[in-house]
Amino acid sequence: KDSYKIAVVHGDGIGPEVAGAAVAVLQAGVQAGTLHFAEYPAGATHFLETGDSFPSTSFEGCRTADAILHGAAGIPGVVHRDGTEAGLDFTLSLRFRLDLFANVRPIKLYKGVPSPLGRPGSIDYVIVRENSEGLYAARGAGALLREEVAVDTLVQTRKGIERIVRFAFELARTRNGSPKDGRRRVTCCDKANVLRTYAFFRAVFDEVANDYPDIEAEHVLVDAMTVHLINKPSHFDVIVTENMFGDIISDLGAATVGGMGMSPSEEVGDGIGFFQASHGSAPDIAGKGLANPYGTILAAILMLRWLDQRYRDNRLRLGADRIEAAVRAGLEDAALRTRDIGGSATTGQVVDALLKLL
Amino acid sequence: KDSYKIAVVHGDGIGPEVAGAAVAVLQAGVQAGTLHFAEYPAGATHFLETGDSFPSTSFEGCRTADAILHGAAGIPGVVHRDGTEAGLDFTLSLRFRLDLFANVRPIKLYKGVPSPLGRPGSIDYVIVRENSEGLYAARGAGALLREEVAVDTLVQTRKGIERIVRFAFELARTRNGSPKDGRRRVTCCDKANVLRTYAFFRAVFDEVANDYPDIEAEHVLVDAMTVHLINKPSHFDVIVTENMFGDIISDLGAATVGGMGMSPSEEVGDGIGFFQASHGSAPDIAGKGLANPYGTILAAILMLRWLDQRYRDNRLRLGADRIEAAVRAGLEDAALRTRDIGGSATTGQVVDALLKLL
Ligand SMILES: CC(C)[C@H](C(=O)O)[C@@H](O)C(=O)O
Ligand SMILES: CC(C)[C@H](C(=O)O)[C@@H](O)C(=O)O
Repeated sequence: KDSYKIAVVHGDGIGPEVAGAAVAVLQAGVQAGTLHFAEYPAGATHFLETGDSFPSTSFEGCRTADAILHGAAGIPGVVHRDGTEAGLDFTLSLRFRLDLFANVRPIKLYKGVPSPLGRPGSIDYVIVRENSEGLYAARGAGALLREEVAVDTLVQTRKGIERIVRFAFELARTRNGSPKDGRRRVTCCDKANVLRTYAFFRAVFDEVANDYPDIEAEHVLVDAMTVHLINKPSHFDVIVTENMFGDIISDLGAATVGGMGMSPSEEVGDGIGFFQASHGSAPDIAGKGLANPYGTILAAILMLRWLDQRYRDNRLRLGADRIEAAVRAGLEDAALRTRDIGGSATTGQVVDALLKLL
Repeated sequence: KDSYKIAVVHGDGIGPEVAGAAVAVLQAGVQAGTLHFAEYPAGATHFLETGDSFPSTSFEGCRTADAILHGAAGIPGVVHRDGTEAGLDFTLSLRFRLDLFANVRPIKLYKGVPSPLGRPGSIDYVIVRENSEGLYAARGAGALLREEVAVDTLVQTRKGIERIVRFAFELARTRNGSPKDGRRRVTCCDKANVLRTYAFFRAVFDEVANDYPDIEAEHVLVDAMTVHLINKPSHFDVIVTENMFGDIISDLGAATVGGMGMSPSEEVGDGIGFFQASHGSAPDIAGKGLANPYGTILAAILMLRWLDQRYRDNRLRLGADRIEAAVRAGLEDAALRTRDIGGSATTGQVVDALLKLL
């Protein structure tokens, strides 16, 4: 491929600041001509202006791109009639319409970034969140009867579980970084002791695990998992889990490595890839230069690596390595940390410094 | 009332050790003749022996008691045909059959107990978990179609939400201990931005909150909550949430105050009260004298206070105060901490010392 089309959606709140930061860093770090950027509107701000949170032209622009890079979305209180948030239509409809079934969230503690844990040890694992079914499949389909009873449905299919579990085992085989004891391992996080859907998730996990005898397979209940992620994070390598549980434990993981501002998210299926930081739109600090751009820049690195894996293009790999080196150098420099990770740098100062490092 | 009947169920794994410890401490700490103990079998061990995890005679014994005190239940792998655990029938059927709709889990960092958080600050809040509906209402009712699709249903009723939210606000009015900034506050933890059931939970929460203008009401999404419980635990006072979310965040909270061994659980409705530590049966350390008895003893204190609130009986209140003083003294003494909280005391050494203190 000569060049790659990157659809960029700024979104709401701090979205434009962090997306702008990532695009600037990509432009400086990747050989000119490799990436082409095209911006499309979506989100709660666009909903307020036009009544449409995700115009079909934006969807088409995203669908025909090689990858999508997103800032952040959502304005509290801008909701649909069922009470759910309009700003989330973008992320959620991309997931479902493009069948981005795997949500990959690396949890990595970088040197220089403070962890709230007293003795964190090395933290470097990946949460693979099932992204196409589970409790989220009910979004927009739940029922409210006579303002008396509300119902949502948790659905797990064999096909859906099989593909996400296989994805997790393949990732464990190939990824860099490994747990403290050096064993490749995939941990299934569920609540199989109480609910049938989760027991089914575990049963299919066990079946697939048989195809990977080189990798240790284990189970941890979701409630116990919250304890382990705090007390022995260095035990974990790859964790695979249902959609809602993935939403919850990936924020918890992020908290242990510096917070949401340090946590990138990759959402992929058989086609396109969608990349963003895991954080929200943080309207309280929007426009003030206080946003941490590292999360979105880490997402841009994931994007380059994912594109390289598909197209084997040295320009992408070199760009990713270069940007990651700059990020590492930035984070080790106390003057280049934003407020949320113990520093006082502005978004602009971080970006300027990274551009200089590149 | 002359005396109170306490139904005691030992259960599996470390259950007998911790239940035995709590009964011994109650016998030493509460004026003789106040409490009468009656033991009943239930759990996975009993299931293996008899095919029945919770005999009807045990249920009757519990139902007719004033309060139920439980050790711990469950043996991994001892499961029903749908893959869910047999040892859990006891706890789960008590919840549903006795309509124990409020699961109250105090999260409190005692002096002397190490927290995995670097700078924990003061931690003293209560999680009020809805205990009668939500995702757990599907237990035993989920469907598995042709080994291809599994379905469970999340149900929230107005009545169910109203009573638990009201319970939380009443608790905020009366409980000892308050957040750092001294404001009485109830936090609704949900995922209202995505699912209708949670949006409904929040809407009913907002309605009920209007009746308590003296108490601050706020919302936090469940994923963000995991971050806050790590980064600013001293902000919280009372947190109210759906059943499954309560299961998850209460373990997370426990992890921040020394782990599951330090976390008591109270389950109450309009009738009887059910008390246990939040931890599981820990089969790996069962019978070795390594179990931490403090969680179950703290549950016994909750039991005395709850009985006193209903019957206004000084013997109960004095007993609770006395036992709590002994627990505080024990935890402050490095020699009286079990392995899980940084010491090396055995279960028996802790109990002997507490009995001496009483
Ligand atoms: C914004 C929201 C819809 C989303 C989710 O709940 O999945 C977010 O929390 C995430 O983790 O990506
Ligand atoms: C043992 C299990 C059924 C129970 C639950 O999931 O509710 C436990 O984890 C708890 O928190 O009380």
